[in-house]
Amino acid sequence: MRNIALNLAYDGAAYHGWQRQKNGITVQEVLEDTLSKIVKAPVTVYGCSRTDSGVHALSYVANFRAETKIPEGKLPLALNALLPPDIRVYKAKDMPEDFHARFCALGKTYQYKIDPRPFADPFLVGRAWHYPYALDKKLLFSAAGDFVGTHDFAAFMAAGGQVKSTVRTIYDCAFSEENGLLIMTVTGNGFLYNMVRIMVGTCISIAGGKLPPDAVPHLLTLKKRDMAEITAPPDGLYLKQVYFGENHQI
Amino acid sequence: MRNIALNLAYDGAAYHGWQRQKNGITVQEVLEDTLSKIVKAPVTVYGCSRTDSGVHALSYVANFRAETKIPEGKLPLALNALLPPDIRVYKAKDMPEDFHARFCALGKTYQYKIDPRPFADPFLVGRAWHYPYALDKKLLFSAAGDFVGTHDFAAFMAAGGQVKSTVRTIYDCAFSEENGLLIMTVTGNGFLYNMVRIMVGTCISIAGGKLPPDAVPHLLTLKKRDMAEITAPPDGLYLKQVYFGENHQI
Repeated sequence: MRNIALNLAYDGAAYHGWQRQKNGITVQEVLEDTLSKIVKAPVTVYGCSRTDSGVHALSYVANFRAETKIPEGKLPLALNALLPPDIRVYKAKDMPEDFHARFCALGKTYQYKIDPRPFADPFLVGRAWHYPYALDKKLLFSAAGDFVGTHDFAAFMAAGGQVKSTVRTIYDCAFSEENGLLIMTVTGNGFLYNMVRIMVGTCISIAGGKLPPDAVPHLLTLKKRDMAEITAPPDGLYLKQVYFGENHQI
Repeated sequence: MRNIALNLAYDGAAYHGWQRQKNGITVQEVLEDTLSKIVKAPVTVYGCSRTDSGVHALSYVANFRAETKIPEGKLPLALNALLPPDIRVYKAKDMPEDFHARFCALGKTYQYKIDPRPFADPFLVGRAWHYPYALDKKLLFSAAGDFVGTHDFAAFMAAGGQVKSTVRTIYDCAFSEENGLLIMTVTGNGFLYNMVRIMVGTCISIAGGKLPPDAVPHLLTLKKRDMAEITAPPDGLYLKQVYFGENHQI
């Protein structure tokens, strides 16, 4: 049985997130159904991240097991011919038996796009958070930096997250300005449920004067959710990169 | 009666072009219906260009006449509150009585986006021409430059275009490379029906070896449509800027 990894991208606007569910179409479901047609057997796909409804992926990794003889170089072509155009597979690669897209991921980079201009860009519908209110950029940039390090992120997890530990390491977290947008790029060894969106919402609350400038270190010490934090909408969130060990390069 | 100009942008993917028609929803229709609600009277909107079905506008200009007392600074807010998010009005301005968005336009800049990568970008669905075939970039860039000047563009007009003269002046026409895309930017005093899309299609045919390198000067001399030319799809086309005289600045 081959263990094949896929590198793909998707515009999440039309999907109820990655994970297969009863109430709506998901990326996992579309990918599994398409792969099943190609390999002519039921396929289960393991994704690197359970992205929420409306969240996008610029570079997502998934793996599946199948008996197919289709060479890895031909699989993307076969898949893209059948997949909807908002999901594209860029690469397929045979992986060692032990590879699992979720459990082997060593870290991830997410991007979050905020459009602070008075009127939203019609080309960013569903692809950025339109936030045309007063923001102190200095406070925004500084708040993002406060996340860097190993902390207990319990205060930045939405209800419903089930994990053994809420301690995560953020290697880098910073805002940049590109074409009028404010973009937060964050890299960490793992992320809790809604963590990036709550981090962004907290930065925005600080930059808008609704939370004190030292709210991030305070919440990291408090280790529990505070009602003052807001969760940024899914539209602006992009999974940008997933990192694996030397034996698991895709 | 006030004569008000609007500066707006729209993602054309969901529309049957600018101009009101029987067979589908258009940007003009949506704008007229929305304005009519706001000024509480029927409104006719004059657009600077009859963009085709699926063509986009980054900066479009239109004008309309109405008796409303809404100040120009408040109109965009009122419009955007009612318009669908793929149409955004950025500015409204009271214009001299003689201003007409189409007849007063002195020139326009269009952009055309080509995605030459093997697999299409899911975030460019409907927003670029995915053309993953062999292209000689040198020939592509050189062909675009051949359009510059005052020429009879009869060979670059689709059937159905009704104009007195097919002579137009192209001030600038060149390709650039941005984030993996090939982008043609062309500025001229006017454009015939489908002219930019036929120009792009011709450049692509030349770059792909289906037309000789000197096809552009040949067709400009021939002054009639040749079957060898292809019309690039509307998806990649963006109206980027419209130019007006000193008394008509918006």
